[in-house]
Amino acid sequence: MRDNNALPLLNEIAMRRPAVHCLTNTVVQALTANMLLAVGAIPSMSSDIVEVADFTKSADALLVNIGTLDGDLKASIRAAIAAARENGIPWIFDPVFIDRSPPRAAYAKELLALGPALIRGNKGEIATLGGGPADLARKTGAIVAMTGVTDLVTDGEAEITLDGGHELMSLVTGIGCAGTAMLAACVAVSAPNVRLASVAAGLDLFGKAGEQAARESKGPGTFAVAILDQLYQFSQSSLQERKVEA
Amino acid sequence: MRDNNALPLLNEIAMRRPAVHCLTNTVVQALTANMLLAVGAIPSMSSDIVEVADFTKSADALLVNIGTLDGDLKASIRAAIAAARENGIPWIFDPVFIDRSPPRAAYAKELLALGPALIRGNKGEIATLGGGPADLARKTGAIVAMTGVTDLVTDGEAEITLDGGHELMSLVTGIGCAGTAMLAACVAVSAPNVRLASVAAGLDLFGKAGEQAARESKGPGTFAVAILDQLYQFSQSSLQERKVEA
Amino acid sequence: MRDNNALPLLNEIAMRRPAVHCLTNTVVQALTANMLLAVGAIPSMSSDIVEVADFTKSADALLVNIGTLDGDLKASIRAAIAAARENGIPWIFDPVFIDRSPPRAAYAKELLALGPALIRGNKGEIATLGGGPADLARKTGAIVAMTGVTDLVTDGEAEITLDGGHELMSLVTGIGCAGTAMLAACVAVSAPNVRLASVAAGLDLFGKAGEQAARESKGPGTFAVAILDQLYQFSQSSLQERKVEA
Repeated sequence: MRDNNALPLLNEIAMRRPAVHCLTNTVVQALTANMLLAVGAIPSMSSDIVEVADFTKSADALLVNIGTLDGDLKASIRAAIAAARENGIPWIFDPVFIDRSPPRAAYAKELLALGPALIRGNKGEIATLGGGPADLARKTGAIVAMTGVTDLVTDGEAEITLDGGHELMSLVTGIGCAGTAMLAACVAVSAPNVRLASVAAGLDLFGKAGEQAARESKGPGTFAVAILDQLYQFSQSSLQERKVEA
Repeated sequence: MRDNNALPLLNEIAMRRPAVHCLTNTVVQALTANMLLAVGAIPSMSSDIVEVADFTKSADALLVNIGTLDGDLKASIRAAIAAARENGIPWIFDPVFIDRSPPRAAYAKELLALGPALIRGNKGEIATLGGGPADLARKTGAIVAMTGVTDLVTDGEAEITLDGGHELMSLVTGIGCAGTAMLAACVAVSAPNVRLASVAAGLDLFGKAGEQAARESKGPGTFAVAILDQLYQFSQSSLQERKVEA
Repeated sequence: MRDNNALPLLNEIAMRRPAVHCLTNTVVQALTANMLLAVGAIPSMSSDIVEVADFTKSADALLVNIGTLDGDLKASIRAAIAAARENGIPWIFDPVFIDRSPPRAAYAKELLALGPALIRGNKGEIATLGGGPADLARKTGAIVAMTGVTDLVTDGEAEITLDGGHELMSLVTGIGCAGTAMLAACVAVSAPNVRLASVAAGLDLFGKAGEQAARESKGPGTFAVAILDQLYQFSQSSLQERKVEA
């Protein structure tokens, strides 16, 4: 663990316990909440239009994942983003499956104009938003994380690439979505000028957790369990490391 | 297991297999259903306004958890509670996160007037409903279970406190919500005059399952799996115990 | 594994990776997606009326499970089935709990007229649809799989019965629903004239996976994890077998 450069970041999350309000698809809500809890963040998930602004205002970051949608959720997403913007709370965008449905892609493009702090998508999703990741970052002012066999993180100027992870990560529903939620926690505890490094460190940690979990797994069932344990253990190590240093 | 005083209660659940209709938040539906199944209860989860009364009428208890809400669900909750009241079916209230949103708190207070058999919340949630747990019990006629590091159960006169549990229980989303569902099964098989003892026995068992699961876990991933196994094993033991006695 | 006659079918799924669009209840979405992923199929889950036709058109099968319902979902189900029919995509029907609610039973009977390729239900659900499984198959043109301690698959003429499985399968929410999704993947890769055999082979495999998972489990928690691993391992074996033969 000594060379894990995400430990200071994990330590920040574990000490500050950022609240992340998640407007995310129903398929992945449980895994998303569990991943945030594993690293010490505090998830909430309400999408009721009458209360979504309250939840957002009292959070440290807002996650918007459009993996499942309906008219009510779209209205709630707009209300939550408005509350985030009014209160200077960063919002993170996961444009799931926009390459499968033109109306979904159109909706995603509308949201782009609302200043996300981070966009995380795979190659097809980023391409559907228009241009390459660096273009998208420059156009929106967001950090863009394009994930795949190799992950790429960019703010439109600097660019960091990361290898790692394991193919089992693609065989558990919502691992990517939950990973974006963990990145939201990373953004929540990072000043704007170090966010690029934080997102890269978070992705690197996520890949390492996946690799380690895969070594202990017999398939996607045990893998989904093991990656939560692994992130928790990384988080606990970050607290331990701090004690040793003190 | 000999000194586990919840075994007769678990035996009742395993033999009578109470149906618990759950109007609960989408994040925790799967864990809630799995926890009920592990102890031999029968979960159902429909929130469709046109059928929620039918499901409630044919159940032995109704669980209302407001962790995620929208207008449709609020209408369905009212219809389900009305059906429960007309048919003498106890309903159990889990006022999740009402300390995070004033409209949610206002809605929770409306429901209070509808005679829940049991209210389960943490300190902040109980305080938001007004007064301490004993006050709340006297005002509503409900048993109140205030859970935390120490759990407290009261009917407004007698009061039982319970230690136990494990901090990993707070790192798995919905463990508390699913625990309330298990308490609903306890209420379903208990006459009103023994409900206070039943709820306390159920909470005690839940804490013991958490402690045992934590001993076998490497983190929140394995813990969430182990607590289901543990409750199932307690339930199986209660059936075995009965056979030995017979 | 040599005598597992579902291996060629699993190999087809693993090689062709069929997309299965699932309109299913929120309780079981994650397990359903994970089971499809474990055998190499591609799940999607959107139920938004404005995009459900797009998702269905680009899928190889459509799963309709009515375990949780509301007005919006009913409209989306109709739109998705219409898109499936226009594009010659088979749709699979899981009429969950229709024996618990008359309005739900009436809705299910409406859907029957829309030509499902496969209906999977337990004895009570099939009886609520009217007549026995063979009658139902003849009336609808669907293959009917009636699952229970013994499974029965029929196209109204031939009939295949299957023993196997394990009682732990009934203690994990959504195992049956996820199993139907796996059958949807089987239907997706099978020509109409071999679907009866494919559905039977899929059910047989599912029962074998359940038996094997039960042997490695201490309760329903570990079982839910192990059955995913087991299906993944069967799928991997089917790929390996192909390599050995080549």
